[in-house]
Amino acid sequence: MTDRPTHAIESAARAAKQAARTLAAVDTATKNAVLLGVADALSDRAREILGANLEDVRAAEADGLSGPKLKRLELTGSKLTDMVAGVRQIAAMPDPVGSVSRSWTNEAGLRVEKVRTPLGVIAMIYEARPAVTVDAFVLCFKAGNACLLKGGREAARSNACFAEIVRTVLRGHAVPEAAITAVTTSDRDELRHMLTLTDSIDLVIPRGGQGLIRFVAENSRIPTIQHYHGVCHCYVDADADLNTALEIVMNAKTSGPATCNALECVLVHRDVAEDFVPALVKRCARDGVEVRGDERLRAIAPEVTAATDDDFGAEFLDLVLAAKVVDSLGDAMQHIAKHGSDHTDAIVTEDGEASERFCREVTSSCVLVNASTRFNDGFSLGLGAEIGISTSKVHAYGPMGLEELTTERYVVRGSGQVR
Amino acid sequence: MTDRPTHAIESAARAAKQAARTLAAVDTATKNAVLLGVADALSDRAREILGANLEDVRAAEADGLSGPKLKRLELTGSKLTDMVAGVRQIAAMPDPVGSVSRSWTNEAGLRVEKVRTPLGVIAMIYEARPAVTVDAFVLCFKAGNACLLKGGREAARSNACFAEIVRTVLRGHAVPEAAITAVTTSDRDELRHMLTLTDSIDLVIPRGGQGLIRFVAENSRIPTIQHYHGVCHCYVDADADLNTALEIVMNAKTSGPATCNALECVLVHRDVAEDFVPALVKRCARDGVEVRGDERLRAIAPEVTAATDDDFGAEFLDLVLAAKVVDSLGDAMQHIAKHGSDHTDAIVTEDGEASERFCREVTSSCVLVNASTRFNDGFSLGLGAEIGISTSKVHAYGPMGLEELTTERYVVRGSGQVR
Repeated sequence: MTDRPTHAIESAARAAKQAARTLAAVDTATKNAVLLGVADALSDRAREILGANLEDVRAAEADGLSGPKLKRLELTGSKLTDMVAGVRQIAAMPDPVGSVSRSWTNEAGLRVEKVRTPLGVIAMIYEARPAVTVDAFVLCFKAGNACLLKGGREAARSNACFAEIVRTVLRGHAVPEAAITAVTTSDRDELRHMLTLTDSIDLVIPRGGQGLIRFVAENSRIPTIQHYHGVCHCYVDADADLNTALEIVMNAKTSGPATCNALECVLVHRDVAEDFVPALVKRCARDGVEVRGDERLRAIAPEVTAATDDDFGAEFLDLVLAAKVVDSLGDAMQHIAKHGSDHTDAIVTEDGEASERFCREVTSSCVLVNASTRFNDGFSLGLGAEIGISTSKVHAYGPMGLEELTTERYVVRGSGQVR
Repeated sequence: MTDRPTHAIESAARAAKQAARTLAAVDTATKNAVLLGVADALSDRAREILGANLEDVRAAEADGLSGPKLKRLELTGSKLTDMVAGVRQIAAMPDPVGSVSRSWTNEAGLRVEKVRTPLGVIAMIYEARPAVTVDAFVLCFKAGNACLLKGGREAARSNACFAEIVRTVLRGHAVPEAAITAVTTSDRDELRHMLTLTDSIDLVIPRGGQGLIRFVAENSRIPTIQHYHGVCHCYVDADADLNTALEIVMNAKTSGPATCNALECVLVHRDVAEDFVPALVKRCARDGVEVRGDERLRAIAPEVTAATDDDFGAEFLDLVLAAKVVDSLGDAMQHIAKHGSDHTDAIVTEDGEASERFCREVTSSCVLVNASTRFNDGFSLGLGAEIGISTSKVHAYGPMGLEELTTERYVVRGSGQVR
């Protein structure tokens, strides 16, 4: 580890901490003016952004990057338009800071309020998705926090361009520029050092592959909220409407197979397996989904590939579906407890008792009854926006919106009370 | 590190995880019946408990333990009566599990609920205070969690006795005994190993001295909520009622000097210093409080000891008070930002603008206006009970009651919606 870069990350973190104190007290109107200014600047400087991104994309291609990873790195005019719309949407949302979630008068006559307050400095570590840079800043800023944004090195030019644009807008509103810092290093030693800066950084959010999340979890001394993978299940109950079940399973599998809320495994109650499995297999063949079934399922549909042990609990991120026949709701829940990832699990049933038991006993971050697992994201659920979907139970569990980027503290007003 | 003890802690943690799945679904009536059963058993078996504790106390005395530490280790009949009353009080409190904090219908017509759910397995690491063992179990259990309780080794016999009594009651109600485990080892390697068991343990709460908390913070791979020290301030504003200020400062300093919400430093606005300082110094002399003042304060009251740099930011836990004259509210807040510990800070003023600015800009876990810092605990604020006072911002900040021992997840009910 050389001295210089360590020093650079430390001073960036300290500057962010200093900025956070000011940001916590910036009023809503100023924050919204900054956000609308950022939206305008992103539109006005689109050519520059797309130019920087093109350089990133060309360099990545030269390094052999291809497929979905290259796709995620690439910005287009229409992606940029969506980003700008997203920024305006967050500007329009209520400010969580200062909102009082509960208040009461205690025995001594003190007025006690539980008040939302920013976390301080949030470090995000993610992969080469430039849009995340803008999303993360906008959410952190609206919630009164400063952020350190470490995106994948392939997106370095795009991220630096975004950060420069945002800083220009901040300067124009006399708000500390250190509200956003694009961390440019990819040196593991330096990142490891960043993860020890408990005096300056309040929260670390890693988003990305297992390797990245493990690196952060193993090295961070700072509280961390993991946005881990989704191994999502759908249980088709004995009392399911089978047409509904088929539509939900197919939608959950095919409408976004590379997303974390896509379905990976369907569990079918034995009483409906004879009817449901052939219909499922036929539809999967039509829609290009490979089914990998257990022995009991293959007894009904022998054309299905045999599942290996590894297929249960796998996140395929592709048009592959593990499938299994179970004896009961209890067995389905046990399978989910063993192979799920606490992300998203669904039941299809017309039996209210079965669905209530499923909702009570399956404690994933989102549990759905008669609906596609694909609904588990901040936009679809109606939180307005999200910085990711937490699979850690502590602090936030499930989609993290503006509220989850704050904490609550106590403000107590008295008239001379002593104890 | 030997193989055997590592294995013991691992299987205890796994058993707790297994139990936690069951506990999450135990109904409120059963939980309350267990708690009332524990209260009865603690009364019925008082002699046994006090006997085990006496052995602990004698062994600790033989090891040279004395003073407040010995006092905290020692149980008495009246302490036990208080404990029993505390258990009954928590039995009477509402069950946070399953409560719906918000619900709405999203655009697709899905009914979305944010529902409280247990965290799972909570490990508490604390010092030789046997009462904490019962408090921690009762709070964790009511919130649907299993707990691993590692108290100071001096209290090993008392803690083992409590755990055995609780387990007997659990057995009687057919609730998994692994809801409570008294961790008896004090081997640092084994504790270090426990802090890596991310698959079994969901949250670690260290409570105690800085050495203990630092040990946990540096070694834990599991989310940790720190209950750190309190360096509490009181700022006496230019517009303070000086009689009120004097009563608040003296109460905050003397009513429990060894507690974390006791006052450590008073900041006096220069405009009232000439009036306030002599009265403060006189009262402190009467009540046995040593004042350590800065130069400007000593210019008014030369008899006061000169404060060193270390006195600002110190947690004295004793009848010692740092004192300083400041030029403005802004200077007072800057001093608090630099030397405070995000625990509890108070302002005394009749000026509404000053108090509102203080409440907005001082972001400690509890900020008070015209009231003693000693009110910052779960009982006094009216939360009913607390497992401690968090100085971490993530997850919980300030007194942690039942709610803070749970998390929230999404339960979504539809009628076949797909995306």
